[in-house]
Amino acid sequence: MIQIAVLGYGTVGSGVVEVIDTNHDSIAQKAGDEINIKYVLDLRDFPGDAIQEKIVHDFDVILNDPEIRIVVEVMGGVEPAYTFSKKALLAGKSVCTSNKELVARHGAELMEIAREREINYLFEASCGGGIPIIRPLNSSLTADQIDEITGILNGTTNYILTKMMQEGLDFEEVLKDAQEKGYAERNPEADVEGYDACRKIAILSSLAYGRQVDFEDIYTEGITKITAEDMKYAKVMNKTIKLLALSKNKDGKYYAMVAPHLLGQSDPLYPVNGVFNAIFLHGNMLGDAMFYGSGAGKLPTASAVAGDVVDAARHLKRSIMAFWSREKLELTDIGSAERRFFIRIQGILEKELEKVQKAFGPVEVLQVPELNQEFGCITRAMTEAEYKTKAADFENLLSMIRVR
Amino acid sequence: MIQIAVLGYGTVGSGVVEVIDTNHDSIAQKAGDEINIKYVLDLRDFPGDAIQEKIVHDFDVILNDPEIRIVVEVMGGVEPAYTFSKKALLAGKSVCTSNKELVARHGAELMEIAREREINYLFEASCGGGIPIIRPLNSSLTADQIDEITGILNGTTNYILTKMMQEGLDFEEVLKDAQEKGYAERNPEADVEGYDACRKIAILSSLAYGRQVDFEDIYTEGITKITAEDMKYAKVMNKTIKLLALSKNKDGKYYAMVAPHLLGQSDPLYPVNGVFNAIFLHGNMLGDAMFYGSGAGKLPTASAVAGDVVDAARHLKRSIMAFWSREKLELTDIGSAERRFFIRIQGILEKELEKVQKAFGPVEVLQVPELNQEFGCITRAMTEAEYKTKAADFENLLSMIRVR
Repeated sequence: MIQIAVLGYGTVGSGVVEVIDTNHDSIAQKAGDEINIKYVLDLRDFPGDAIQEKIVHDFDVILNDPEIRIVVEVMGGVEPAYTFSKKALLAGKSVCTSNKELVARHGAELMEIAREREINYLFEASCGGGIPIIRPLNSSLTADQIDEITGILNGTTNYILTKMMQEGLDFEEVLKDAQEKGYAERNPEADVEGYDACRKIAILSSLAYGRQVDFEDIYTEGITKITAEDMKYAKVMNKTIKLLALSKNKDGKYYAMVAPHLLGQSDPLYPVNGVFNAIFLHGNMLGDAMFYGSGAGKLPTASAVAGDVVDAARHLKRSIMAFWSREKLELTDIGSAERRFFIRIQGILEKELEKVQKAFGPVEVLQVPELNQEFGCITRAMTEAEYKTKAADFENLLSMIRVR
Repeated sequence: MIQIAVLGYGTVGSGVVEVIDTNHDSIAQKAGDEINIKYVLDLRDFPGDAIQEKIVHDFDVILNDPEIRIVVEVMGGVEPAYTFSKKALLAGKSVCTSNKELVARHGAELMEIAREREINYLFEASCGGGIPIIRPLNSSLTADQIDEITGILNGTTNYILTKMMQEGLDFEEVLKDAQEKGYAERNPEADVEGYDACRKIAILSSLAYGRQVDFEDIYTEGITKITAEDMKYAKVMNKTIKLLALSKNKDGKYYAMVAPHLLGQSDPLYPVNGVFNAIFLHGNMLGDAMFYGSGAGKLPTASAVAGDVVDAARHLKRSIMAFWSREKLELTDIGSAERRFFIRIQGILEKELEKVQKAFGPVEVLQVPELNQEFGCITRAMTEAEYKTKAADFENLLSMIRVR
């Protein structure tokens, strides 16, 4: 029997308990031994809950129990998760986590400690919830050089954008509805400002390119400025608007960003709606691949954590994660990234078009019947830097969305 | 340096050589050692090709060379691939393959030999070309009980159906075009009759459910009877027609089948077009997940084989594949599977509808303007057995396609 401890009995923690309970026999078969939850660490008590007898309030009980081989860290946040994880690894216990903040900030260090001790620091659930993406990157796509990762990595914002698109509502209205339904936090900043997606693309990029990508270096824009009017233009174009987190290798230089994009119907990410997530990859041999699934939610996330527990149990004395060096990968500014831009211009088309063409070059013009005091344009492909210069000199610009 | 041998210098074999050559340095880094191709086995010679100096015609040269640790079997077909693979494994050499016929027929036995010797028999490329699906099933989704696998697993038929849908052409015309472009074999039977997809769903199901699923037991229908008229009805319904290979666990009983299905726009498999493949899974904890990518093609398939070589190199003395017992999983007849059926009826709607309703119960009626001597119906949900009985008694039936 392999004894494990769960740190944090919140949504994901209680999910892990449920998954290991429900699929007990098949998990034991695949792990090669029975998995038993010996302790659950939480500040609270849960009288009446079957878990109560396993509740401990002091991490040292877990740390000092040599029977505990695997620690599941599902507390979230950097501290005390970082201290606990590091202590557990230093004590020779493998750690499985869903904690993206911690992995993005200290993942390389914690993996190194695990590697030195021939144990494991696993974090499949940190990106894309239940979607298997960390392990495929680590052990399937090893013959490829990944040159692009583009993901819809945040379920809350994808739910909001999907609803805005389908029902023609404004951001604030949908956010309120999402909060009422529990799809958005009361303080939604981490999601709607793109910070959550930013940490996830930092983790995926670090793993794919083999060096530490610092999330602070990633250009990040959220979805708070997207309006019902933008969605009307998207509809006219048969496109949709998604918050994309992406990184690309362009001639050996890497850049990364999080920003809303317009996507056409032939894009594999176009049909990814609601709380679903998807990760699109391009490899120099593989070509295109995409992984799709529940990006969040108690059970899908817990399933990914429990899958890590099974793998850690199979490899109690062997490090299985591949190379992700602590050496920093210097990202280039996004200024050299090239794409087309959708812009909304205030004013009457006939009067303003010439000015627009003079500023941005030839454009494709779009009009939404009910918006007669403005019009939309798609520019030709240009660099971010070029766009920025042109846009700075232009007065009547209402909004801009990048076109994928 | 790890010495390997490649059996077969055809499309995939030459792709493996290209992948290992192109990504030599990153592969060495991930494998933890340099990978060197020492021999290529082929009946032919390739004068002028750099590979010629490595060509051998006698498998025993490879078998008896103790330096060879990994054998790449990309010959296809059951023999001599089976004999060579078994001999290599018995001699303590890991084997990586793209050979679906062989894996479907003898996979369980070859995995068992590998497990006993603490080496590996790996076959990521056997299903879905470059899509990582075997390894996620083996080592990511281990905390879940998979209860459904539904895949578009054959690029040739998906190319043909996509083209029929988009251009309104008939099967025979598109097949000819696909053969000219090299997307279909001169003898296309294995693809268009569904035999290829059948072997792949047998492999995926065996791995997901942990017991041997014999491909001979799987109900298999191809796409040769799909017509341009069927596609017209699909368009009227905003649906598309795809060849699906699927298996399901229904209350502890498993069934599997390969057959064309109608799919609606909200189906995640709907946008999978051309030579792309996708595999949809449902787990009892995970919910829905989907894997999408190039299902065939020289480099994507070779990338998957080379990824297996990296994993075999990392685990020269350790078996990494999970449980897939030689014990047979008895499939139930598809008769109890329940779904709706699309049927085309010869005759004038007004005259025939009552008869149809009497035979099949309430139906949804569909008409294509240019097809005025017939009409279409979608039945309510019923079992395959019930449908079969009703259809046997009905005279004017032109065709039937299952509705997913």
